[in-house]
Amino acid sequence: MKGVIWSIAPDTQIADISHSIHAQNIMEGALALSRSAPYFPPGTVHVAVVDPGVGTNRRPIAAHLGAHYFVGPDNGLFTLLLERAENNGEIIEIVHLDQPRYWLANISNVFHGRDIFSPVAAHIVNGVPLSSLGTPIQDAVRLKVPIPVRTAKGWRGEVVQIDHFGNLATNLTQSHLKAIHNIIVNISGVSIVGLVPTFGSCSPGDLIALYGTQDDLIISVVNGSAEQRLDVRIGTLVEVVEA
Amino acid sequence: MKGVIWSIAPDTQIADISHSIHAQNIMEGALALSRSAPYFPPGTVHVAVVDPGVGTNRRPIAAHLGAHYFVGPDNGLFTLLLERAENNGEIIEIVHLDQPRYWLANISNVFHGRDIFSPVAAHIVNGVPLSSLGTPIQDAVRLKVPIPVRTAKGWRGEVVQIDHFGNLATNLTQSHLKAIHNIIVNISGVSIVGLVPTFGSCSPGDLIALYGTQDDLIISVVNGSAEQRLDVRIGTLVEVVEA
Amino acid sequence: MKGVIWSIAPDTQIADISHSIHAQNIMEGALALSRSAPYFPPGTVHVAVVDPGVGTNRRPIAAHLGAHYFVGPDNGLFTLLLERAENNGEIIEIVHLDQPRYWLANISNVFHGRDIFSPVAAHIVNGVPLSSLGTPIQDAVRLKVPIPVRTAKGWRGEVVQIDHFGNLATNLTQSHLKAIHNIIVNISGVSIVGLVPTFGSCSPGDLIALYGTQDDLIISVVNGSAEQRLDVRIGTLVEVVEA
Repeated sequence: MKGVIWSIAPDTQIADISHSIHAQNIMEGALALSRSAPYFPPGTVHVAVVDPGVGTNRRPIAAHLGAHYFVGPDNGLFTLLLERAENNGEIIEIVHLDQPRYWLANISNVFHGRDIFSPVAAHIVNGVPLSSLGTPIQDAVRLKVPIPVRTAKGWRGEVVQIDHFGNLATNLTQSHLKAIHNIIVNISGVSIVGLVPTFGSCSPGDLIALYGTQDDLIISVVNGSAEQRLDVRIGTLVEVVEA
Repeated sequence: MKGVIWSIAPDTQIADISHSIHAQNIMEGALALSRSAPYFPPGTVHVAVVDPGVGTNRRPIAAHLGAHYFVGPDNGLFTLLLERAENNGEIIEIVHLDQPRYWLANISNVFHGRDIFSPVAAHIVNGVPLSSLGTPIQDAVRLKVPIPVRTAKGWRGEVVQIDHFGNLATNLTQSHLKAIHNIIVNISGVSIVGLVPTFGSCSPGDLIALYGTQDDLIISVVNGSAEQRLDVRIGTLVEVVEA
Repeated sequence: MKGVIWSIAPDTQIADISHSIHAQNIMEGALALSRSAPYFPPGTVHVAVVDPGVGTNRRPIAAHLGAHYFVGPDNGLFTLLLERAENNGEIIEIVHLDQPRYWLANISNVFHGRDIFSPVAAHIVNGVPLSSLGTPIQDAVRLKVPIPVRTAKGWRGEVVQIDHFGNLATNLTQSHLKAIHNIIVNISGVSIVGLVPTFGSCSPGDLIALYGTQDDLIISVVNGSAEQRLDVRIGTLVEVVEA
């Protein structure tokens, strides 16, 4: 993919965001992308390939969302970024990539990342407008994003991401929880009393809850793995209540 | 290695192709290189270090093959690219790197990637001709590449690569198999009837055969691992017969 | 982190040295950094984030050590480079990063790599002097580096690094051992007689001792893992004696 990009747009700077999204886990890819993309400069083109439907009739798409461009399969990978652009009233332009003259000459059924998405991304870098690359669409596929639910005593959310340290990220954020004065976090039959400011304020082995890199509620074991300690997975329920 | 390259050729763009070749597996490295190198722009210099013989009398070499340059140990890593250049009647120039003035000052016995290959690659980027870097050779080491065999009912090949999803790549290609009308693929005591166009046209868990990123026959489990399902390894036989 | 750097210093070339330091292992990070940093061009800015104390009162720092710059937590990560600069009589300037105008606007308690270290590194690339970024300090935290000990018959050191092949690096170097004529290496109840020049001069499965990429004594199993064979870990004692 990098070779293809450099063949079309030779001066492009390329960074890898992640190669460790679990196979076919579109939501995990969507989260990783939505967390890192905003930190890149305006005009950055992001290519994302979590693509179990490659070679079927799922559409290849490119999207201009706010200050950034995105290229990949139309399977919901860009849902969170699209919703953010909508909420912020930013530019939204999405096209179905249907102009093979901007692709490689031979299109494999199993690697559109190389054959379609990378050349299209490089052409965007070169200034080709989305309107030349495809046909506008309004019905891009969206993932069903788990939404935290208000409960009698607080909020119910779920684990949405687990990093390689075993830290659990939830879909509950500081904005949900700020009205709760004495927080208790219930997960997997265990209660965590109170939030701590950071890992280093506790002892190795402590099971803690704190705000993460996105102001999201995270659950961790200091110098250990909350994933292993609690035997949880993506989708495990997390309840936060007033003590 | 990147620091060494940038110290000599500061504006070089560098991409990592793979850091997950199994230790000492020269053929796996040769396949990975031959699959990705052609997608890079003309003039790209590829440094490859699968090098169990580092520090022995195996030669360090540089090769100009078609539009690309390659630097690494003379152990067969470039066999597939060399054969492709021969088949295509392209430029072929290979030199034994024997000019230490183009290397680092101190040469470790165990890391020629850093001490010899990277500085030589950077000098090629800077325009130093191969003829200055070493002495021409005609006898570069070649791997014995497994060749598919015609059988009474079809073709017999083998598994040559297993990716991190557990997909099995074989040395059988569309050009071998196009004359077979109703394909049956036999591997590891199991028969797969027919080819499918892509992963997404089947159900999760299905064991399928299809053409991969190189028009090669691959064997996969949809959203799963054929490697684990079939308990195969590099070299496992694959027979394709007319139904 | 790369997005943040490119947002401030758009033309920066960025390389990843390692993402496989074990969690919270500051010494392992310090070793990896001290081994690779010297090979980068003068003026390179190195960002290092092994940071179990993130968000506590551990200081963020930047250091100018010889020809290079370093940015990260004040937890000893730069000890080996600092000691090398001292031994070589090179420039040493270290500042406590206390000027938030050079950071991102919002500072997470758990990811200073993104919010403080990356923007500071990019400003150094842009020519901002350390004196603008923070306040000079003389008391940077230092790791206790294990020092080899002279014994009646030779030297006693320890395993300081284990690479992904399972090779064991020790803190004993050629300069310690050159006076020993017939070397025996004792580790984990096993004796290795003599040093070999390189891996390829032995047979697969041989347990060998040799000098590594840093002229350090390393212990390896040819085409195998010394870590698994000997069941050792970081800190395991290594004795070298005259035969």
